[in-house]
Amino acid sequence: MRHHPASLDPLFKPRSIALIGASDDVARIGGRPLRYLREGGFKGAVYPVNPKRDTVQGIRSYDSVAALPEVPDVAILAVPAQGTVQALRDCADRKVKAAVVFSAGFAEASEEGRLAQEQIAGIARENGMRVLGPNCLGLFNAGIGYYGTFSAILDAAFVEPGPIAVVSQSGAYGSHIAHLARQRGLGIGQWITTGNECDIDVAEALRWVIDQGDVKVVMAYAEGIRDRDTFIEALEVARAKEKAVVFLKVGRSDVGAQAVSSHTAALAGSDAVFDAALRQYGAYRARTTAEHLDVTYACARGLYPTGNRFGIFTLSGGFGIQMADDASACGLDVAPMPEAAQDELKAMLPYASPRNPVDATAQALTDLPLMTSYIAAMLEKGGYYLFAGIFGSGPASPTFSAKLRQALRTATAGHEGRVLALSMSAPTEIVRAYENDGFLIFEDGSALVNALAALVWFRRSFDAAKQARTAPTATSRIAPPDGALSEHEAKSLLQAAGIAFPKEALVRPDEDAGAAAAAIGFPVVVKISSPDIAHKTEIGGVIVGPRDEAQARDAAHTILSRARDKRPDARIEGVIVSPMIRGGVETIVGVVRDPSFGPVVMFGLGGVLVEVLKDVTFRVAPFDVAEAQRMIREIRGFAVLEGVRGAPPADVDALAVMLSRLSQFAAHNDDVVESIDLNPVLVMPRGEGVMPLDALLVPRNAASRS
Amino acid sequence: MRHHPASLDPLFKPRSIALIGASDDVARIGGRPLRYLREGGFKGAVYPVNPKRDTVQGIRSYDSVAALPEVPDVAILAVPAQGTVQALRDCADRKVKAAVVFSAGFAEASEEGRLAQEQIAGIARENGMRVLGPNCLGLFNAGIGYYGTFSAILDAAFVEPGPIAVVSQSGAYGSHIAHLARQRGLGIGQWITTGNECDIDVAEALRWVIDQGDVKVVMAYAEGIRDRDTFIEALEVARAKEKAVVFLKVGRSDVGAQAVSSHTAALAGSDAVFDAALRQYGAYRARTTAEHLDVTYACARGLYPTGNRFGIFTLSGGFGIQMADDASACGLDVAPMPEAAQDELKAMLPYASPRNPVDATAQALTDLPLMTSYIAAMLEKGGYYLFAGIFGSGPASPTFSAKLRQALRTATAGHEGRVLALSMSAPTEIVRAYENDGFLIFEDGSALVNALAALVWFRRSFDAAKQARTAPTATSRIAPPDGALSEHEAKSLLQAAGIAFPKEALVRPDEDAGAAAAAIGFPVVVKISSPDIAHKTEIGGVIVGPRDEAQARDAAHTILSRARDKRPDARIEGVIVSPMIRGGVETIVGVVRDPSFGPVVMFGLGGVLVEVLKDVTFRVAPFDVAEAQRMIREIRGFAVLEGVRGAPPADVDALAVMLSRLSQFAAHNDDVVESIDLNPVLVMPRGEGVMPLDALLVPRNAASRS
Repeated sequence: MRHHPASLDPLFKPRSIALIGASDDVARIGGRPLRYLREGGFKGAVYPVNPKRDTVQGIRSYDSVAALPEVPDVAILAVPAQGTVQALRDCADRKVKAAVVFSAGFAEASEEGRLAQEQIAGIARENGMRVLGPNCLGLFNAGIGYYGTFSAILDAAFVEPGPIAVVSQSGAYGSHIAHLARQRGLGIGQWITTGNECDIDVAEALRWVIDQGDVKVVMAYAEGIRDRDTFIEALEVARAKEKAVVFLKVGRSDVGAQAVSSHTAALAGSDAVFDAALRQYGAYRARTTAEHLDVTYACARGLYPTGNRFGIFTLSGGFGIQMADDASACGLDVAPMPEAAQDELKAMLPYASPRNPVDATAQALTDLPLMTSYIAAMLEKGGYYLFAGIFGSGPASPTFSAKLRQALRTATAGHEGRVLALSMSAPTEIVRAYENDGFLIFEDGSALVNALAALVWFRRSFDAAKQARTAPTATSRIAPPDGALSEHEAKSLLQAAGIAFPKEALVRPDEDAGAAAAAIGFPVVVKISSPDIAHKTEIGGVIVGPRDEAQARDAAHTILSRARDKRPDARIEGVIVSPMIRGGVETIVGVVRDPSFGPVVMFGLGGVLVEVLKDVTFRVAPFDVAEAQRMIREIRGFAVLEGVRGAPPADVDALAVMLSRLSQFAAHNDDVVESIDLNPVLVMPRGEGVMPLDALLVPRNAASRS
Repeated sequence: MRHHPASLDPLFKPRSIALIGASDDVARIGGRPLRYLREGGFKGAVYPVNPKRDTVQGIRSYDSVAALPEVPDVAILAVPAQGTVQALRDCADRKVKAAVVFSAGFAEASEEGRLAQEQIAGIARENGMRVLGPNCLGLFNAGIGYYGTFSAILDAAFVEPGPIAVVSQSGAYGSHIAHLARQRGLGIGQWITTGNECDIDVAEALRWVIDQGDVKVVMAYAEGIRDRDTFIEALEVARAKEKAVVFLKVGRSDVGAQAVSSHTAALAGSDAVFDAALRQYGAYRARTTAEHLDVTYACARGLYPTGNRFGIFTLSGGFGIQMADDASACGLDVAPMPEAAQDELKAMLPYASPRNPVDATAQALTDLPLMTSYIAAMLEKGGYYLFAGIFGSGPASPTFSAKLRQALRTATAGHEGRVLALSMSAPTEIVRAYENDGFLIFEDGSALVNALAALVWFRRSFDAAKQARTAPTATSRIAPPDGALSEHEAKSLLQAAGIAFPKEALVRPDEDAGAAAAAIGFPVVVKISSPDIAHKTEIGGVIVGPRDEAQARDAAHTILSRARDKRPDARIEGVIVSPMIRGGVETIVGVVRDPSFGPVVMFGLGGVLVEVLKDVTFRVAPFDVAEAQRMIREIRGFAVLEGVRGAPPADVDALAVMLSRLSQFAAHNDDVVESIDLNPVLVMPRGEGVMPLDALLVPRNAASRS
């Protein structure tokens, strides 16, 4: 069941709150949220519920939800696991619209816990109540002072409201990242932890925060995704609104994935598929917590450059080279300054290196007007969309820092549309001052470059989503096959979906393979055709290269007798006779089902080495031709398709069309198709199309039967 | 000319110092060092030289070096570029043993500067004086209060002496990293910047610091290496002494390498070769400044674990999974706890995950004895050489932090030989307290894992160096060939060096190729043999597959006539007849000259895709068989050699022997050989050896002539 995002409003921005299990002790799970709500400036009513007390933390307390003077929008349950189901029933009886369940001890803990969690989910479903948790740290909405959490990170100080939303399955991770963001001076408006996700998962929380006007960037964390459709919708809406989603997804290693399954009940799909899905729908995948924060920090300005030309200003050659290395690795273009501008800079300081990195040497530290001229020239004449200055620990000195700030302000005035960043190490208050002048500040130069490259990545992703989608081909619905399919049947179904195969003939056992081969044209390939023989070569069921009618006829006889010998029980349709096609680049194309994302299309180069290097990529079905073009370019060996060692460029356009059509077919027949293998697919020289030489389609019922 | 390391003692640990160009102004280049020397506690004599003053900063000043009451060990030259040569001559006349030249404006600036720098080098050479710089920030030796530097990072505070040495070509980088190290609480004993390196380069400075007893770890930075032999010796001595060298080498991208060449006169060899050389000789290459610091920090304890079993303790599943992912990517073994121990932990806390990561849930925060039991069980029963606990921002609270510290102390008592690390975010004084308890502290969990993996890497490297080297084969000296060599000649030379080729026959134009082929055995390959035809296929000079004497004879005739037609000027020896060998894994092996490291051996898999993916690796010649074994395992496609898709494992042992022999041949004939190509080399199934099918040896004189 899909919910409308607005169904979460009572949970995420309530007008009134009941706190079940409210405590006087501000260190306890029932005490912390009340303290935060009292001190955080929440304007609506807050109703402590605690039958043992008249007041809690000085606020009138009620014996029960039933006794409350009004129906609160949300009930926060700070009660032990064993009391949770009853407390939630009480809320449902009072028609409370939403609840937050803190307590652990549910599906993550034991079989009884799992059953109790199912009861919670049932109560939610039956009453139209939305539930966050159980086993979660709750949430906050800093803009309205709503703190429905017992996270200890707020003990020391509240988090300033700001353009960032945090959506985290893990409460501990959500707390940690909020702590780090606060240290970094970043404001967080929305903070939601989803825990065991008996009702609301990361996808739905993400979908909600994307709609909030004050949210510019989302830091998301998950171990897996439950609600695929909402997840994809959330990412697509975010991309259309140019809101950056920076995602940390754990469980990328085998041992990590094992730990995921032992940790929560999250469905762990393939990490490679998740990774590709994030790219496909425009979310950036952070690999480390530090990167999660750095990229979010850069995105919080909402400035995504339209090009990747990157100018580097340095006072020391070594730092400049290091940053140029990093930039190059991240795909930024360290383009040189125009020659004339280089000459002007050189005239100002003969031993400078004015190319890019622009190295004004330590001289610029003692001659700040020179520095100003240099940086101004870079911004005016270099055509750089992104600029970084490298200052090391220089700005840590307060006296020098003020002068440097002034010089940088003068140099960059009028260039507010550029991404301006500085690498420097200085006390927090100095860093904040530079940030207020419009600079992104990073201590580590490599982190700076990586975050700036992420901005370019987001811009490209936003723009790609704006391009008109190529129209989907009318694809056919197929009837659920009654069991396994032969190669010939599989090809026929795919052919109807717009995927062209080389012409071939199915020759029944009593027909003449020689004549069929002559009609096809020599040399040919002769293969057994049987729904019961998936691995044809294992029974000697493929003969390559007959050059005349007699050889073709012999081949057919040989294959049919081998099949009857080795698989007497198999239903034999006959043999397939097809042209022997040579040339082109060997690739593999397939469709598999991912536990999280459903049908996904896989693409890779063929051959033993690719198998070893696992140079394959995925896309969630369906997708259009432009997405297929991006997909194809993701493999490391892509240059092979462009033509190497004198080979002509391959027909990548035709390949992209085929991948897109296959994805539409797979999505359209999701309930019928378990997997498809097209292996090999020869990508012929440009203009000559693609040649899938084999097809295997496993229906879902066949897979479940085996 | 190689110098003895002890020749640097007067420079790096002088008993007396002259400061030429001493200034009263402590902000100036001639004032700062004097202030640092006065305040830093240097015990020896310090002689300011300034003809305009009687005293400088309250110390008696001298008119000239000649007027000094004794010959100082070192002269520090804080004079402008144009006065430097004369000042250095004055020092040489007084027999000063060493000098530091701060001034810029030499080879990095202009042609006149380059000439002046050559004069400096000449003065050094002729007088046996050792010179650091020019264009450098100098050096310090904190243990004796010797500060021969004007780096501003000492303005705020001195650096505590400690186990770390910094050796940096770049003064700016050296200063920055020292600043960061100080922030991290790391002590630096030796700090040397080499600048333009007219005499002393990074290699020689590295060689000297390795010999200092108080140095445990070296942070090195360079854009390239001048003195290959000293560099290799320094790294080998460091490895033998189990001192970690953590190296940041810039210029790894094309644009970075361009910037290197425009920045200094450093010889930029191939970055891939430099990278391989660091691995070969046991130095760790850091990719970012942050990693440079993190790995150094971990190494400063001098504890290198003998295994890679890594135990992770967490209070939150998500953090544990994230760290397990990182550990897996870094090659650490996240091995599970023994089953019995898991049962015991589970009995203590039923909803814990006791496998590894060991997740004691947030419960352990309120039940510290439980945490103690869990961690103690991991250390006692898990067999983990490395341990990490993940605590987020929990320890930031001073009250909780003290209790947590006690719990961790109790849990880890008696396990001081393990590497114990914590991921946490807390104020500096709290971090220092945990460090004093024996823990390595990292804010970022991914950085922690990477640094711990580096410790394992160093241990393996130290141990590998201790293994007895396989004895070098007696390799032949070859006479400088008079021009280019034919394939047959090249093979003969290499055969004498122990590299076996399939038997082949050189058939002169007037001899019978058919008979020769019959002696070899059919099918055969027939190839043109001429020193003047390097690319045989281009003239149709190779025919593969003759199956009888007549075909072989025809092939020889065809090839000879093609050669005479297309290359009438070529000297034709005849044709080579060799067996047609199939099977095995196709690889390429070569020798090239690197501008920094001289002859290096290259190895990679053959085929178009490898060319695209550049999956090749290098070693500096010569090296032994064990090193060759490590080399072979570095390529990403190594699994192909282990046998995939049912193919048998390839004869990697024979390949390693061949690579080692080739490296010895290349090193031994360094002055004669420009490059060698063995392409393809078929690595046959285990026990069947390697089959190099072609050989091209380009002599150095031939290369320089072309």
